[in-house]
Amino acid sequence: MINRIKISDLKEHTGKEVSIAGWVDVRRDHGKLIFIDLRDASGKVQMVILPNHAEAGAVATKLRPEWVIKVTGLVNKRPDKMISPEQENGDIEIEVTGIEILSEAKELPFDTGAELNFDTYLDHLPLTLRGDKPRAIFRVQAQIIKSFRDFLTAEGFTEIQAPKLIGDDAEGGANSFNVEYFGHTAHLAQSPQLYKQIMVGIFEKVFAAGNVYRAEKHSTTRHLNEYTSLDLEMGFITDHTDVMNMENKLLAKIMADLKINCAKEFALLKAEIPDVPEKIPVMKLREAQEIMKKETGEDSTSEPDLEPQHERWLCEYAKKKFNSDFIFISHFPISKRPFYTYEDENDLGYAKGFDLLFRGVEITTGAQRIHSYDSLVASMEKKSLKPESFSYYLQAFKYGIPPHGGLGLGLERLTAKLLGIENVKEATLFPRDLNRIDVLLSK
Amino acid sequence: MINRIKISDLKEHTGKEVSIAGWVDVRRDHGKLIFIDLRDASGKVQMVILPNHAEAGAVATKLRPEWVIKVTGLVNKRPDKMISPEQENGDIEIEVTGIEILSEAKELPFDTGAELNFDTYLDHLPLTLRGDKPRAIFRVQAQIIKSFRDFLTAEGFTEIQAPKLIGDDAEGGANSFNVEYFGHTAHLAQSPQLYKQIMVGIFEKVFAAGNVYRAEKHSTTRHLNEYTSLDLEMGFITDHTDVMNMENKLLAKIMADLKINCAKEFALLKAEIPDVPEKIPVMKLREAQEIMKKETGEDSTSEPDLEPQHERWLCEYAKKKFNSDFIFISHFPISKRPFYTYEDENDLGYAKGFDLLFRGVEITTGAQRIHSYDSLVASMEKKSLKPESFSYYLQAFKYGIPPHGGLGLGLERLTAKLLGIENVKEATLFPRDLNRIDVLLSK
Repeated sequence: MINRIKISDLKEHTGKEVSIAGWVDVRRDHGKLIFIDLRDASGKVQMVILPNHAEAGAVATKLRPEWVIKVTGLVNKRPDKMISPEQENGDIEIEVTGIEILSEAKELPFDTGAELNFDTYLDHLPLTLRGDKPRAIFRVQAQIIKSFRDFLTAEGFTEIQAPKLIGDDAEGGANSFNVEYFGHTAHLAQSPQLYKQIMVGIFEKVFAAGNVYRAEKHSTTRHLNEYTSLDLEMGFITDHTDVMNMENKLLAKIMADLKINCAKEFALLKAEIPDVPEKIPVMKLREAQEIMKKETGEDSTSEPDLEPQHERWLCEYAKKKFNSDFIFISHFPISKRPFYTYEDENDLGYAKGFDLLFRGVEITTGAQRIHSYDSLVASMEKKSLKPESFSYYLQAFKYGIPPHGGLGLGLERLTAKLLGIENVKEATLFPRDLNRIDVLLSK
Repeated sequence: MINRIKISDLKEHTGKEVSIAGWVDVRRDHGKLIFIDLRDASGKVQMVILPNHAEAGAVATKLRPEWVIKVTGLVNKRPDKMISPEQENGDIEIEVTGIEILSEAKELPFDTGAELNFDTYLDHLPLTLRGDKPRAIFRVQAQIIKSFRDFLTAEGFTEIQAPKLIGDDAEGGANSFNVEYFGHTAHLAQSPQLYKQIMVGIFEKVFAAGNVYRAEKHSTTRHLNEYTSLDLEMGFITDHTDVMNMENKLLAKIMADLKINCAKEFALLKAEIPDVPEKIPVMKLREAQEIMKKETGEDSTSEPDLEPQHERWLCEYAKKKFNSDFIFISHFPISKRPFYTYEDENDLGYAKGFDLLFRGVEITTGAQRIHSYDSLVASMEKKSLKPESFSYYLQAFKYGIPPHGGLGLGLERLTAKLLGIENVKEATLFPRDLNRIDVLLSK
């Protein structure tokens, strides 16, 4: 490895000579002094090349933004009046004694820090992702997925690798992408649902974190055609409330980890890490509709689902009433839920299932699942699905599976909502949509 | 949750009444006694229903393999002469006082434990994966991927979510699957290579663990059309030996974790966890060929690559000569390596890259990558690739990227080789091949 220390560790070396390496962020020429802000993955620091270091000065005049260099220099305390407390490493400065060029860069297509429209931003992700904001976003995202896995592993769940290439497009028609597969048509999975249920038969409690695909012809701030789904499924439950309790604890763990490991990123993005209540408030869809009717006058009591404005209203209500950023809405009509959803025997026509709302949107759908083979086949037939198309999956039920349930959580949407990002594509490393796979698709 | 303890914890409750739950593994009727082996994800235990528990006995006579039940009973020490030391929980027995049926099962298509041909095994994975052997295999696999992530996170790598849907089929022709994408043809990624290189520009050190796709028309014991690739890429390296050293430490961590967490699984599968040498032996391809020529008489010195029998021979050689299950072979001809491979300036015509051989096969390909934009474009042109097709990726190099390198490791192949499994499909939860996506594809 190239011998160097991280820029974030510089302060420990004040008064000493060090080597650092990274990207030229900005170069400023002030008469005989040259200032360079150097950036590595850990942070930034201001460097100065004094006139007495002629050799370094000669190299420095060639440097342009994004050139990659290795620098040796002294870590100096700044004089009191030069200290910038808000700036990272604002109390030190590197007095450069040597510069080695590791990699050159061509002229940038726009100035560093320029305001870009979103298409230009996406057109140049290999460059624009280098900004402070995207780096913070995807650090937070890496922490969320790590906390998801760490928590579930500690809870006795086993990780599975669910396939993404599937045969029959079982879960439903228009929203799946077709793949040419050796003379057959295969599909890209819309979720690991059927496989995680099968795997309850092997490990009882499983999780999967991987890509899923929706061939939805939308290009909005909420849609992605490829995203990362965090899925869990657990056996030997009493009902869907066990799944809700697990999610409650999972979210508490994620937020606790973010507070420890990503405080800097949240500060940079001016976002707040929510507190997760000991028990996230829960109400049935019908209760929620009654409250909305009473409080707003809008009557949605005959609707089978929540509209976006209802989700926003309920989140505001939960914040005011329960001081919670989260609220579970349970018992949607069974007719509007997938075929594998368990009907509440004490509230016929309604599902033992839930959505989790957070900061105005639904971030999770979960439920108890049907575990009886005969009930599952009947449910498929009721939804005009062909049990033959599901024969592989149905084996799990034919050969005995315990009461179980689970949920799915969209990683990018959770990241965006946590960080106050309007467009979910900004919380997706390389977003795919109707018009774009890296570059805009030609017409 | 259904109130119960894990079967693996039973011994701590000897002499007490407990509740357990799981699947009926076998039922044996011995006159007035009924014996049932109960299985949960943690283990198995023998239970006995005595004639004085008439109610439990009545339920027990209905039970068949794979029915899911909850049982209350006493944890009894077995009399000395009934102890089976090799058997799990062989010194205890549950005296059943009550049985509750949680889920029924239909008649099984074959007896539990029957020898199945591989197609029948694959046709019934939702059932056959419930065996001791598959459960052990996929526990080991979950540990490997966890150790991979834990190690790299501790080493300062950041996890990235690389896209699998890609536009131009950049890395090369015939081996990629086509996807219908809103009137365009997209492809499934053969590796996260280009994206992890881009991300070195943001995080310096990154890893990705996800599905990759090869449209190879093979149906062998070594090929998979969808598999899980463990990828890493690291910046500010001196050369490819930094990548090799990182892999050396990574493998040591994986094996150490397996020794701690999966000893039971390795014992069950009669497999041995290899020791990883402090420094895995390394030789250039030409040296390896010279040794083989001298020792075996077979002259492969004009070959640009290793044949399967050479890989096997070199692994045996490494075991005998260096007492190592692993050997790095470096410096393959640059003409045979991908366009992004770095040529050794001190050994022109040969790559600063390597394969890692383990127990007779290559499990990793890695290398230093070209980081200069101009060299990379020249390399593409030399390989008759069109730089225009790579314009998105090339931005990473145009705008400055440090010297870097990385590697990819196939999760299923590593799992199979570690566990002495002949067919890599047996180390893949739901393998996809030329003829099968869950069910056999009809002609």
